[in-house]
Amino acid sequence: MKATVYVTIKQNVLDPQGTAVQGALHSMGFGEVGSVRIGKYMELELDTSDREEAQARVKEMCEKLLANTVIEDYRFELEG
Amino acid sequence: MKATVYVTIKQNVLDPQGTAVQGALHSMGFGEVGSVRIGKYMELELDTSDREEAQARVKEMCEKLLANTVIEDYRFELEG
Repeated sequence: MKATVYVTIKQNVLDPQGTAVQGALHSMGFGEVGSVRIGKYMELELDTSDREEAQARVKEMCEKLLANTVIEDYRFELEG
Repeated sequence: MKATVYVTIKQNVLDPQGTAVQGALHSMGFGEVGSVRIGKYMELELDTSDREEAQARVKEMCEKLLANTVIEDYRFELEG
């Protein structure tokens, strides 16, 4: 089974990386770019076919390691 | 219009970050985790409603700044 995890910075938290990329895009002539939010995108292969178990385990992985839940939100999708 | 960009390391390129996360997950007891691939996930607000123009411009942004096309692949979705 494959889990795709998206970790993004919470809306009310400043995203310096996003701000830097926005500035760089503007300086390159891409003036139409408004806000830029940058996050992590992870693909995990899981050696299980039990969807419910995978759901609980990936949530636990996100809470414990993959996301810093103080400043980040996470969501994930399961395939297969 | 909103563009969501996914930048991932090419399949034949070593992903040390992914390997490190896999090791950490294993040491935390998540033995069912096989390979881990980590990439960037970006949300860009675009001040345009012309879909075709946005398609070309975001591609150009990816080629010039958002992805290192030597070792990374990119794809993006447009909404709105």
